[in-house]
Amino acid sequence: MKYGKLYGVGVGPGACDLMTLRAVRVLREVPVIAIPQRSRWDESVAWRIAAAPVGAVAGQERLFLTFPMTKNPQHIAPAWDTAFTQIGQRLEAGKSVAFIAEGDPLFYSTFIYLHQQAPTRWPGIEIEIVPGVSSISAVAAVTSDPIADGQERVAIIPASYGLDDLPDILERFDTVLLLKVSSVMPRVVAALEKADLIDRAVYVSKATMADQKIVPDLRSIRNDRCDYFSMVVVSRKHRNGVLAGRGRAAVGAPRKVDMDSSLLTAER
Amino acid sequence: MKYGKLYGVGVGPGACDLMTLRAVRVLREVPVIAIPQRSRWDESVAWRIAAAPVGAVAGQERLFLTFPMTKNPQHIAPAWDTAFTQIGQRLEAGKSVAFIAEGDPLFYSTFIYLHQQAPTRWPGIEIEIVPGVSSISAVAAVTSDPIADGQERVAIIPASYGLDDLPDILERFDTVLLLKVSSVMPRVVAALEKADLIDRAVYVSKATMADQKIVPDLRSIRNDRCDYFSMVVVSRKHRNGVLAGRGRAAVGAPRKVDMDSSLLTAER
Repeated sequence: MKYGKLYGVGVGPGACDLMTLRAVRVLREVPVIAIPQRSRWDESVAWRIAAAPVGAVAGQERLFLTFPMTKNPQHIAPAWDTAFTQIGQRLEAGKSVAFIAEGDPLFYSTFIYLHQQAPTRWPGIEIEIVPGVSSISAVAAVTSDPIADGQERVAIIPASYGLDDLPDILERFDTVLLLKVSSVMPRVVAALEKADLIDRAVYVSKATMADQKIVPDLRSIRNDRCDYFSMVVVSRKHRNGVLAGRGRAAVGAPRKVDMDSSLLTAER
Repeated sequence: MKYGKLYGVGVGPGACDLMTLRAVRVLREVPVIAIPQRSRWDESVAWRIAAAPVGAVAGQERLFLTFPMTKNPQHIAPAWDTAFTQIGQRLEAGKSVAFIAEGDPLFYSTFIYLHQQAPTRWPGIEIEIVPGVSSISAVAAVTSDPIADGQERVAIIPASYGLDDLPDILERFDTVLLLKVSSVMPRVVAALEKADLIDRAVYVSKATMADQKIVPDLRSIRNDRCDYFSMVVVSRKHRNGVLAGRGRAAVGAPRKVDMDSSLLTAER
């Protein structure tokens, strides 16, 4: 059987104009865009990014698919069953389907499970990845703190799955990016305090989106319910941006961080 | 003094259409584009990416700056002196300058040193970062192997600055991205053989460029002089793409890896 082509298209971290030229072109050309959303009532974040640049396309189907935000397989499995059926019907009809993903489609994305399952479900299917600007590049851009340079090492850790060896990782890497921190902020703050690195850390959510948030004092939000699209960046090195001039000397008496107002603005 | 604005603009990993809409717009609007090149005779890689999408802009200056590819400070320092003088003259005249960088401007980029020095040299200068698709997203896209998903951890290591603890890092991270491997391939191969992970690794250079190269058998190039824009990806997990079906069982008798021809094509 000759299936349509499956695309995984990264739409970038949040600002519409951080989509790539290729992403816009592919999304204008395909007959079907598959759009993940958290529930039938929540607007899709990926589609909020892509909708305006892609615009109206005559005859194009926008296929909304719901993936509940839970680790409970009893809720996720039926959602994926529906998604596979819906996407499969289009592919089997020879239509190409572009599944959109915030950031990059192969970096902690919903698309990865589809990508993994596709060759079994639709043997011989052609898959094409359109890479996107990732959340880590977005966070670096809005804090103006480099991710890494020269001989520096970077670790990327999903914080909600274990922080026991964080002190050791903080010793051995120059920049540590903690993802999925929303549910574990108290433990993240405790681990950073213990490592004497609480003042070398910054919390960022929804980088480059209109409602982005940059919080240099993690203690002030240690008990908050944080956004899903959030990250904590820990940098041993003194950087130029939000992390400039902060460090061990400041522990216990965090000084006010001067942030250029341009850093706090999502749109150019 | 009111300086022009300094932009660090990521032009993405190699294919022209992986530039973002914002990068193209900024580069069309600024009066000066600063373009790093390795020598006066080597074409700038960043400009090769940006030139066509940006096109001709009346009255715009393209300022070529040479940064020799060396760690020798005696050669780098004069290059930066020239760059600071040249860029400074434009900024002091109130002109905005966009410095272009391959990939993302805050991820192992020449721009980072300029970014670090700028606030001292031009006090109060406004700096804006335009993030780009990084080389790691590009490598994932062309190999079709996800960088990380769910609870997986990622380590990014510049290989030319020490590999002693690589076995330990390979134990503790799901995906390890080794950058700057060109001069240390024999040591990278030896370390991966020792860790029994040589068949879980793939070499990629110039991902998404017209002359990209994907080499699943690292042993075949262990003594080659590799390209500067190259990376070795090591993944413990069985992935879908180039790394599919490879693993410990294959050690000593690496099977031929089937690669979808679409994976080897740089352009869509």
